[in-house]
Amino acid sequence: MTTSEVTQKGLAARAAAQQLALASTQTKNDALARIAAALDKNAKTIIQANSLDLEAGDKKGLSKALLDRLALDGERIAGMIAGLNAVKGLPDPIGEVSGERQRPNGLKIRKVRVPLGVIGIIYEARPNVTVDSAALCLKAGNAVILRGGSDAIKSNLELVRAIAGAVEAAGLPAGSVQLIEDTRRETAEELMGAREYIDVLIPRGGNSLIQSVVRNAKVPVIETGEGNCHAYVEKTADLKKAVEIVYNAKVSRPSVCNAIETLLVDNAIAAEFLPLVKQRLDEAKVELRGDARSQQILAGIKTASEDDWRTEFLALILAVKVVAGVDEAIAHINKYGTKHSETIITKDKKAAAKFQAEVDAAAVYVNASTRFTDGFEFGLGAEIGISTQKLHARGPMGLAELTSYKYLVDGNGQIRI
Amino acid sequence: MTTSEVTQKGLAARAAAQQLALASTQTKNDALARIAAALDKNAKTIIQANSLDLEAGDKKGLSKALLDRLALDGERIAGMIAGLNAVKGLPDPIGEVSGERQRPNGLKIRKVRVPLGVIGIIYEARPNVTVDSAALCLKAGNAVILRGGSDAIKSNLELVRAIAGAVEAAGLPAGSVQLIEDTRRETAEELMGAREYIDVLIPRGGNSLIQSVVRNAKVPVIETGEGNCHAYVEKTADLKKAVEIVYNAKVSRPSVCNAIETLLVDNAIAAEFLPLVKQRLDEAKVELRGDARSQQILAGIKTASEDDWRTEFLALILAVKVVAGVDEAIAHINKYGTKHSETIITKDKKAAAKFQAEVDAAAVYVNASTRFTDGFEFGLGAEIGISTQKLHARGPMGLAELTSYKYLVDGNGQIRI
Repeated sequence: MTTSEVTQKGLAARAAAQQLALASTQTKNDALARIAAALDKNAKTIIQANSLDLEAGDKKGLSKALLDRLALDGERIAGMIAGLNAVKGLPDPIGEVSGERQRPNGLKIRKVRVPLGVIGIIYEARPNVTVDSAALCLKAGNAVILRGGSDAIKSNLELVRAIAGAVEAAGLPAGSVQLIEDTRRETAEELMGAREYIDVLIPRGGNSLIQSVVRNAKVPVIETGEGNCHAYVEKTADLKKAVEIVYNAKVSRPSVCNAIETLLVDNAIAAEFLPLVKQRLDEAKVELRGDARSQQILAGIKTASEDDWRTEFLALILAVKVVAGVDEAIAHINKYGTKHSETIITKDKKAAAKFQAEVDAAAVYVNASTRFTDGFEFGLGAEIGISTQKLHARGPMGLAELTSYKYLVDGNGQIRI
Repeated sequence: MTTSEVTQKGLAARAAAQQLALASTQTKNDALARIAAALDKNAKTIIQANSLDLEAGDKKGLSKALLDRLALDGERIAGMIAGLNAVKGLPDPIGEVSGERQRPNGLKIRKVRVPLGVIGIIYEARPNVTVDSAALCLKAGNAVILRGGSDAIKSNLELVRAIAGAVEAAGLPAGSVQLIEDTRRETAEELMGAREYIDVLIPRGGNSLIQSVVRNAKVPVIETGEGNCHAYVEKTADLKKAVEIVYNAKVSRPSVCNAIETLLVDNAIAAEFLPLVKQRLDEAKVELRGDARSQQILAGIKTASEDDWRTEFLALILAVKVVAGVDEAIAHINKYGTKHSETIITKDKKAAAKFQAEVDAAAVYVNASTRFTDGFEFGLGAEIGISTQKLHARGPMGLAELTSYKYLVDGNGQIRI
């Protein structure tokens, strides 16, 4: 009987995780520094391997956008190295005592932060995810099993070769960072079921990848990334600020999850605001799709379908709906949103408080762009993804979100009566 | 097209959850008080319904232990009422600000505790779980969908009728607490897949129930309860204390998850300790199953099989193994344990620290019985289960573990550049 790659690497990861949980901050930082140096030293080999991936992707007919995400050059490797150094500079979350209490029977109970253990990352053809994920998992004391897309396999093999070598040179087990080399779907499915070896799976990529992991995994999953976000311009809003917030939230980077997809406008100001915001959005050629009322105001814009309210366009398209007030805005968001990021633009403190209390999302803004939902912008120093579920972690996930805790209980002979 | 019970109740629960998230502490406490009063008032009807369940269970040939768990009488209903009052007295976790920071761009970010939303509980034939779960979910602002075993359906129907009436009388939606009345397996499976309606599923019951939920659910699950726990008597241990801790951890309630199943003894003291502990355990007729070395010392005890090291006996059976020292003890526990509760009995502070650092479990004790792993004993004031996974919550889960958080971000026109 042959042992599968997942079993083999799963066992190695479990063993590595035991050592990593005990590794000092200094050792982990040393490993990160060595990874950075190894990427620098092996940049040429990595870029060569990447060019083979790009060639194959081109032949296969990958889109320009996908090929761009896949491509590595000196600048992008420098970006990875900068990322490694940033993670190295972050405080080590492990060992932090987050609670301590003495019970009447004399038992002393401490709640101490520990690593999650073994983290599985399933992702697509972005080689920077390989390095980012390895760095964050390592710093939080976790072993990681990476399963990247087949289109990036040659790049990932070179990257992980360099990373694992550096990790070993720092005195940590090579099993700390491993790549699943078999890119067939069956192997990904085996990984999703490997509860004995993996404590949590984090899918990183497009919605279909994430949904496939969420639906198929037996291992606990943190769902990330889908963002059907809204901006609601309330009737007391500063319209100039509102125009700029809406423009920023839609246009500054339309392909990301914290960009808005629908604009909700209070009926009382719709006739004044919609032409203003359209004029600004026209500069970026944003296509508007409106409900009947906004079509009355903005003659000639397309009709928004029921589907449009549900769609994460990830493009320069914005659905527009006129609402009667904050209640209708909240109801629309809670019906169609993905619990990611939502913003109200208003001068009315009561409306703002109501919106923040009642909208069910990871981040609820008042008078700011949704584009700030991000680990760096939130001051977490790093980000492995943005959780849209409520279990374990919500919103941007940094190092602390890659940890668990254990209770240490000290007694002097206590028994339970 | 007819709407299924799960869809119907799922929609009602989602709607109820929106209202519950905003309910004041006073309203929630009022609901708990009204539930307590309703159970008191309807005690006779509830006990009558329960006697029908018991009759059917008896005909069906349910074991005595199962029938005992199913049975309700005045005393057990008084116990439920006491539980409701205890939960009423606990601080409300919702709204707590657990973090606040101002970013350089002026954005003020608050991390605020919110309910999880809709919680699904899948359990067996213990009607007290119906009331406990409803109380805890409600106090933490969550709607709950209960799916109890078919053997308790008549009892549960009466209990939930009383609960839902009381909840409505307190001004909260009846959808706050609902019971799935169709006890077929297909309906449980539909519930496990109802990601649109349920934020988290908590299975409560035996290991086969829990494993079936963990393996089949598409909704995020918190795995609870399986406890293959160990006591390790290190060579410097106070042997008298060690005897009492082992006795307590095995004998005081063998059917629960925080009881021990294996005793590990340091070789240096095995010849002295094993006869002592056997003498004490004999008082409760505990069956010992030993490895070769302990069989040499305790002539006549059975042989422990490889399976015995993995088994949660939940009975007066204890596997016994002699180990060379703390390293072997830790390795054995990390190989066979279920990450629940583990204890070392020792006077050596270094051995204690090593054991606590390296044993991978929710609660790691020094010189105390594992039986303390419990929400009440830990001072959480309540317990909905003991998590043996690392995601979201570990160890005893009280009210705080039934919550999530959201980020509230206040700005004055910030856009991301």
